[in-house]
Amino acid sequence: MLMDDMGWGDLGVFGEPSKETPSLDLMAAQGMLFPNFYAANPLCSPSRASLLTGRLPVRNGFYTTNAHARNAYTPQEIVGGISQDEILLPELLKNKDYASKIVGKWHLGHRTQYLPLKRGFDEWFGAPNCHFGPYNDSFRPNIPVYNNSEMKGRYYEEFEINVKTGESNITQIYLEEGLDFISRQATAQRPFFLYWAPDATHAPVYASKHFLGKSQRGRYGDAVMELDYSIGQILERLVSLGIHNNTFVFFTSDNGAAVMSGPRQSGSNGPFLCGKETTFEGGMREPAIAWWPGRIPAGTVSHQLGSVMDLFSTSLSVAGVLPPDDRVMDGLDLSPVLFNNSLLDRPIFYYRGNQMMAVRIGQYKAHYWTWSNSWEEFNKGINFCPGQEVPGVTTHTQEEHTMLPLIFHLGRDPGERFPISVLSEEYEEFVRRATAVVKEHQERLIPAVPQLNMCDAAVMNWSPAGCERLGKCLKAPESKPWKCDWPH
Amino acid sequence: MLMDDMGWGDLGVFGEPSKETPSLDLMAAQGMLFPNFYAANPLCSPSRASLLTGRLPVRNGFYTTNAHARNAYTPQEIVGGISQDEILLPELLKNKDYASKIVGKWHLGHRTQYLPLKRGFDEWFGAPNCHFGPYNDSFRPNIPVYNNSEMKGRYYEEFEINVKTGESNITQIYLEEGLDFISRQATAQRPFFLYWAPDATHAPVYASKHFLGKSQRGRYGDAVMELDYSIGQILERLVSLGIHNNTFVFFTSDNGAAVMSGPRQSGSNGPFLCGKETTFEGGMREPAIAWWPGRIPAGTVSHQLGSVMDLFSTSLSVAGVLPPDDRVMDGLDLSPVLFNNSLLDRPIFYYRGNQMMAVRIGQYKAHYWTWSNSWEEFNKGINFCPGQEVPGVTTHTQEEHTMLPLIFHLGRDPGERFPISVLSEEYEEFVRRATAVVKEHQERLIPAVPQLNMCDAAVMNWSPAGCERLGKCLKAPESKPWKCDWPH
Repeated sequence: MLMDDMGWGDLGVFGEPSKETPSLDLMAAQGMLFPNFYAANPLCSPSRASLLTGRLPVRNGFYTTNAHARNAYTPQEIVGGISQDEILLPELLKNKDYASKIVGKWHLGHRTQYLPLKRGFDEWFGAPNCHFGPYNDSFRPNIPVYNNSEMKGRYYEEFEINVKTGESNITQIYLEEGLDFISRQATAQRPFFLYWAPDATHAPVYASKHFLGKSQRGRYGDAVMELDYSIGQILERLVSLGIHNNTFVFFTSDNGAAVMSGPRQSGSNGPFLCGKETTFEGGMREPAIAWWPGRIPAGTVSHQLGSVMDLFSTSLSVAGVLPPDDRVMDGLDLSPVLFNNSLLDRPIFYYRGNQMMAVRIGQYKAHYWTWSNSWEEFNKGINFCPGQEVPGVTTHTQEEHTMLPLIFHLGRDPGERFPISVLSEEYEEFVRRATAVVKEHQERLIPAVPQLNMCDAAVMNWSPAGCERLGKCLKAPESKPWKCDWPH
Repeated sequence: MLMDDMGWGDLGVFGEPSKETPSLDLMAAQGMLFPNFYAANPLCSPSRASLLTGRLPVRNGFYTTNAHARNAYTPQEIVGGISQDEILLPELLKNKDYASKIVGKWHLGHRTQYLPLKRGFDEWFGAPNCHFGPYNDSFRPNIPVYNNSEMKGRYYEEFEINVKTGESNITQIYLEEGLDFISRQATAQRPFFLYWAPDATHAPVYASKHFLGKSQRGRYGDAVMELDYSIGQILERLVSLGIHNNTFVFFTSDNGAAVMSGPRQSGSNGPFLCGKETTFEGGMREPAIAWWPGRIPAGTVSHQLGSVMDLFSTSLSVAGVLPPDDRVMDGLDLSPVLFNNSLLDRPIFYYRGNQMMAVRIGQYKAHYWTWSNSWEEFNKGINFCPGQEVPGVTTHTQEEHTMLPLIFHLGRDPGERFPISVLSEEYEEFVRRATAVVKEHQERLIPAVPQLNMCDAAVMNWSPAGCERLGKCLKAPESKPWKCDWPH
């Protein structure tokens, strides 16, 4: 269950003051909470590509080289998608006859060859891109919603989102799609993989009528409440089907809360610095809960440094499938953590595009590069760290610190506000450790061909498969590719 | 149980990432959690005076008029203390034959006439002032530790705090004093009031040997862990004595975490803005838990806006004692909240000295004055909002906004980062409501004689009662009173 732009601080169990996530808080009480869990990237598409490949974006190709250290994703103009060279989780699970379904946002490329049913999923209900809009179909089509390999309609058309009121029943549809899939597999006694990826907490945030106005936090909170309710429903379904003791469930989010969007359209990163798009903790620290009654001890907290990429390796391990042995994997098999409460030593790397910006080892984090967003954007009022500013840390120019990295102790200073003195023994000792870890990482690193460099208006969702039947095919403009502009 | 400078974000249940407060988290699971609970003041002494009087500092005299909107407290030089005109909680509880003890920090004046045994307490073990030091006794005496009305020694002398290692067994002593008192009253079947006020999380933070180095958060976390352990011991003692179903227990803190002290000496205010000394949420929002098995429903969250002053009124109510009827009370009787999960409509006022800076009503907060700390201090490196800066909000000069208050919706925006547009209907509507509430408050307000205006080196703890017996009397300098300087 992968949320969209939901922040670490959005869950009651992680300190959201309104405490409006009873299902997730219960899930934590029945499972294992991970306060130190990370996205593979501070932006959606690369993070999602890493979840399904178990590899860093720089290795799986979900990055750009158009400019230095830029976040890239898959808007409608993107030409690329997830490479055929990558092996996706549902493709491997086929070895054990798993049925796989993705419900919600795909985001690994919307052109035909990149879609989920081409990459190991048996079913899909959802959209290939973000639900931005509504668009005037002449310059930009609205995003299609697929049922398997054909579109069923488009956001803002057949699948309404009222941008003014925030009303949409799409989360309810996604919930039903998830429940139905689970029930069918349970009846068929077939092992299954459900990738439940709703997008209601991504701007423009939405909720169905029943939840609108219910939250103390406004519309964003309404969306969280509906997702929380839905997660409760999914867990209950597992219990009522009697398969809860045989199902590994994991909840997390794709990147930090989009704090630049303001409180009406974004969530909370709790005590952490900045948010989405940045390599500060607010950009990549995620809420995370593992649940498997009878196997994962209830009510435990694991301080394991975890990553969405670990879900790849862990899922394979749980399913009894061997991971690929012909490539470097970044994900870890968390089984010893989940089942024996072990702690595995491993670093967390924070990338922005092709640049490793920072590394966390234990409680320490070293920033080799810092950047919030550019002065140009900032001066237009776009602020990736609203209300937060740490001099020399939340820099508006790309600042290199390779020779003297900025070091924080995230246990004492989760907000990355107090760099450790470069004159201290503590500093020297950690830099020595970090240097060795980074050196090893970089020596083994073979960057993939970047998939997110080229854009073209001709590739937008003008005529998705199935459009004929609906009479919803649109005419694409002539192909005029350009190097995508990635401003942050 | 009143903590010293502990922040809202320091408890696992309020999202501290290291989750190192198992006893408090259990207390919350067995009791009622208050995410919207407030100190009466962003500084220690006034907040503590309000707890014991049920009245705002401006009404009970614990404030200064030496300069506009300044926080004042009771350092050793202070001439004043809690006024004889005030009625203290233990004085009233005497009506029902309660035995009262304070363990730990008093802070309502250290001159003989102001000490706890003069003001309704039957017993005291602790200190009248903060444990700053160590001092050279010739210019400044170390703070005495009293047992009832006589000193037993001084901090850094008989009661050691190793500033270098952070080791001190004082919390253990305070724990034993508390447990012993509880057990004696239970044996005597006498109703009791224990005011347990340890100071280990106030700089210089300390912990005993067993806890030093145990926390993932460093020394501050060690202190929190020891307090958490101690609180667990106190609750367990109530259970083992069989009086838990007949005892109202409340946990909170005196003001926000002292974030200006840096992460080695201070805690976390979670998602809130700034800290101690300020009237932003980080200065006055407190962790709070009520516990009374069998009477307060387990595992509940109350969104009641609460105040430490309510503990005065609620304690009286629970003890069956009538509150004073000859004066304005600011505390509410929270019984309907605790026992019926009701919500009482009430504003929270945020004062700095004699100035009402802000008011919260429901989810909205209006700032009429803003100030973090002065440019003079800030330029010396003292920062009350480290890493946080909201333009026009965390101002370094005292800024008046009376005509156009800054309004925040604390549900959507707990970090006070996004002022609501003055052009919106929402703004206009709330300002109308707030204006009426503030007007009523100010019309009823009769400020007390300020107690915290005068200082004098002669009144320091040179020769506390009992010093003769210990051979620890020091010679006071000649009296030369001055108007205390309150820089923030």
